[in-house]
Amino acid sequence: MTLWVRFRGQDSRESCGALEATGVREYAGVWFDQAVATDVIVPLTKVTLLAPCIPSKIIGLWNNFHALAAKLGKAAPSHPLYFIKPGSCVAGPGEPITRPVGYAGKIVYEGELGIVIGRRCRAVTAQEASACIGGYTCVNDVTAADLLYENGDFAQWCRAKGFDSFGCLGPVIASDFDYLRSRVITHLDGAERQNYPLADMIFSPTELVSRISRDMTLLPGDVIACGTSLGVGSIRDGATVEIAIEGIGSLSNTLAPHPATQFPARAS
Amino acid sequence: MTLWVRFRGQDSRESCGALEATGVREYAGVWFDQAVATDVIVPLTKVTLLAPCIPSKIIGLWNNFHALAAKLGKAAPSHPLYFIKPGSCVAGPGEPITRPVGYAGKIVYEGELGIVIGRRCRAVTAQEASACIGGYTCVNDVTAADLLYENGDFAQWCRAKGFDSFGCLGPVIASDFDYLRSRVITHLDGAERQNYPLADMIFSPTELVSRISRDMTLLPGDVIACGTSLGVGSIRDGATVEIAIEGIGSLSNTLAPHPATQFPARAS
Repeated sequence: MTLWVRFRGQDSRESCGALEATGVREYAGVWFDQAVATDVIVPLTKVTLLAPCIPSKIIGLWNNFHALAAKLGKAAPSHPLYFIKPGSCVAGPGEPITRPVGYAGKIVYEGELGIVIGRRCRAVTAQEASACIGGYTCVNDVTAADLLYENGDFAQWCRAKGFDSFGCLGPVIASDFDYLRSRVITHLDGAERQNYPLADMIFSPTELVSRISRDMTLLPGDVIACGTSLGVGSIRDGATVEIAIEGIGSLSNTLAPHPATQFPARAS
Repeated sequence: MTLWVRFRGQDSRESCGALEATGVREYAGVWFDQAVATDVIVPLTKVTLLAPCIPSKIIGLWNNFHALAAKLGKAAPSHPLYFIKPGSCVAGPGEPITRPVGYAGKIVYEGELGIVIGRRCRAVTAQEASACIGGYTCVNDVTAADLLYENGDFAQWCRAKGFDSFGCLGPVIASDFDYLRSRVITHLDGAERQNYPLADMIFSPTELVSRISRDMTLLPGDVIACGTSLGVGSIRDGATVEIAIEGIGSLSNTLAPHPATQFPARAS
């Protein structure tokens, strides 16, 4: 069992590593199966944890839990239904969620399990998929909910969910994880809002990787966010959302309280 | 005026370059404004042109031409409406379009102008946007049309348009291009199917870059496909689609005739 992290040390260098009792052991080479342990262990007090991977894409599932489908009165789909969140939307543990420029509407949290791809894969079977999964992380699939159906002709999934900082990932990638025995628990400012079993998933992680890999090549670091279940709600400015999954850890992000100062116009 | 390309030479190395009368001049460094001309010119007969950029995301516009909006009876939107095609879907000039595994339905071409981002930008004004545009290319925004509304609860834009090889780009990135004076002309097996003026665009290129950069950070190589207009149609297996834009060039791709052999199951 490895708990993979990415971190920034005091020299500002960004590295890949694994959590150990005394700190973060630095790894050299390319995550996941080409990463090589070094002799360097950095105390946790001297690192900033970053998002644990750098996805080229985040594939977000819609309607992938029986309980939420039943509540919404939707049939279970015959193939995974998904949107894409761009890599540019990633936020790491503790990083602020920033309100979009000029958007005063509802911003919603969704606590989810994230599958992190370890090896490039295309058109793999569900059996082969296990070997392509590098591990699992926590996801907060943040959404500017009022934009989703703002235009009656076109549901804006990619826009509403694609804003910078709307893809919170972390704190670690757990290499061994039994989703059938674990739950996603979401707290909003300390109050429990979601607590659902991952065993209620419609398409399992290996089934998701297999089916989606038939649609598109999955690359190391890509994330499949498995969808959410009951208890989604809105985040007030300044509120903190914590997504916890036993066996992985706890991911905490705060919606920045002063939106006007978050998006200076700039080209760089 | 520079016509940027990416190419593979006889030594299998992939490089960035610019078209000149006698061949491709190789550039060193990072496209776009950090690329430095070298003394090497490779004859065109000794290179394979690749997709001219490596996008982290392709943002595809829906309903961005007045003529198509009128035909569909849709109002012009108040903000760009878009989906995301993943970087994994890119195909270069001459590369085959491959039919998705197990999909026997209609595959549709859409000839479009593509804006290629040259500099990282976030929340830029339309005036600032010009300096962030590295140039323009031709796009064939290929779609597995029967999947789009296959599920009555969720329009599958990202899936139907995200398959490997469904984002055809090229052949070059033209640094200077006046969209107001040019047309998109699509031929299917030599017969003209689209011929529409880019001046009919609802949101102009600089307006698109500005507005979308307020939603998400745009990175060098990212592509905004400006949407299509009248004349979209389906591609038979084995048929060739050519998207031509005066001032840029002509992008040609063939739908591979033997789908069963295109997607060997593999993990690598």
